[in-house]
This record gives sequence, structure tokens and C-alpha cells, in this order.
Amino acid sequence: MDKILYYMQKAIEQAEIAAAENEVPVGAVIVRNNEIVATGRNRREQGKNALLHAETDAIYNACQKLGGWRLWNCEIYVTLEPCPMCAGAIINAHIPKVYFGAYDLKNGACGTITNLFQMPFNFKPESVGGIMQEECSKLLTDFFKNLRNKKS
Amino acid sequence: MDKILYYMQKAIEQAEIAAAENEVPVGAVIVRNNEIVATGRNRREQGKNALLHAETDAIYNACQKLGGWRLWNCEIYVTLEPCPMCAGAIINAHIPKVYFGAYDLKNGACGTITNLFQMPFNFKPESVGGIMQEECSKLLTDFFKNLRNKKS
Repeated sequence: MDKILYYMQKAIEQAEIAAAENEVPVGAVIVRNNEIVATGRNRREQGKNALLHAETDAIYNACQKLGGWRLWNCEIYVTLEPCPMCAGAIINAHIPKVYFGAYDLKNGACGTITNLFQMPFNFKPESVGGIMQEECSKLLTDFFKNLRNKKS
Repeated sequence: MDKILYYMQKAIEQAEIAAAENEVPVGAVIVRNNEIVATGRNRREQGKNALLHAETDAIYNACQKLGGWRLWNCEIYVTLEPCPMCAGAIINAHIPKVYFGAYDLKNGACGTITNLFQMPFNFKPESVGGIMQEECSKLLTDFFKNLRNKKS
């Protein structure tokens, strides 16, 4: 469990960088053999790119670092439940294990709105949600509170 | 209908380029106001990148060309039914209309295995499948037949 908290803390640090960049704060890390091989954070606005969520950013970086598209011996830690695109990207990259923080009531595709990991696609990752849930949620609620204060 | 066939033919041309590059032949085009604003093709092996499907390639190119992540006034034409990642990317990019060719019995997320477009996510694209289905399927069956012949 200590290991899981350690890597989720690293994902939270990525989310904090995103917040400082005025992006919705979601962060991710990909771990292989107890080593962080890639980090990612939401960069959708800066990148002007619908695809640039924390998970896809981290998966891209891991594929580049490891030299292939299969991340079958990796784990991903992400501060928010993956959306359909990111859950699908995790399936396509063959990442067997997913740890996520906050549940996403609007876009969660790992149990909340649907669970893509339990459908008969060609790969079925396992997922564990609710890791450091309070810290992960607080990042998001604080970010949107600040945004509203700036606007008013 | 002529318009739909015309753009699907353009998507097929992208798939043919992918086949010539030894990639599973799937192609896509994104159209806005009767103009092709971006093309994409499967480049997963060359790019060593699990994210590089035809649709995500085209969405990335369209976001870059149009300067933002919302493609709400666009249509996407793709030769194969989108997988969960690509269907999710279409939702995230707010593309309202999807035309696809062949149905994907293993990974289709627009009606075959599941239908992400009918779930309560924050955006619900419409989709029409089976456009030039035979031509789109034949590209894939020919590709895999050639691959088997090369191996034997």
C-alpha cells in the first residue's frame, strides 16, 4: 500500500503542475519495475489538443521512452478516474493495472458511468479507484473555486 | 449521400497509404463546411505509439489546424468503427457526427461491443455505420491475408 500511496503522490505532483499552468489539474505517472518511466498531466488548453489528457500524455511519453506501443509490464497511477478515451488508450497500450484517485461522476469510464475494463475488448486491465481520493478531489474543487473567484 | 461516399473514399485513400506503410489499413478524414481540414491514418507501428490510430491522428491534425480542441462544427469519416479510445476522443473533441465503414467485431465502441455515444457522457455524437462497408472491410482482409502469406 505504501508503494501505491507513493506513486499516487507523484501523480498529484503532476496535477499540481497542471494547476499552476491553468489547466484542469489531473496528473499521471507510469511505473515499471518500481521505477517511474513516464509522467503526464492535462495540457489540453496549452496544446490546443483534445487528446492531451494526463493519461494519454503519460502513455505517449512511456511509449517513446520504452520504444514500443505495448506497455504490458507497466502500471498507471492517475488522480482522476479515466474518461472513455483514456480508458480506451489504457486498453490499447495493454497496461494491466490502473490506480486512480477521485471518481469522475461526469466522465468516469472505469466504473462510474460505465466500465470499459469489464467489457469483452481484447484486453482487460484491472483497476482500483479511490486512492487518496480526498487529496485528488480537493485539487479539482480548489481549481474550479479559484476559477470562479477570478471570473467574479 | 454522394457527399458521404466522396469523403469515405478519401478516408479509404488514407487507409491505402497505411497499408503501403505496413500498418493495419484504417484511414480517416475530418470535414468542416464541405472541406477536408485534416486527414489521419493508423501509424501505430511507425510511431511506436499506442495512441496513433487513424481517428486520433486526424483529430490531432484538425486541432492543430483549427487552433483549438473543440471540433464541434466538424464531421469525421473513418473506414473502421472507432475503438473505445477513438470514440472517447471523438466525444472529447465534441465532433457531432461520425460516419464509419466496416463494423469492428472485436473493438467497436459505436454499437458493436458497446455504444459510448449513447451513454450519459457530456457530449453525444451521432454515428452512421456501414458506409462503403465492403470496400473498407476488404482493405483489412487483404492486408491480413498478405501478412499471413509473407509469414508462411
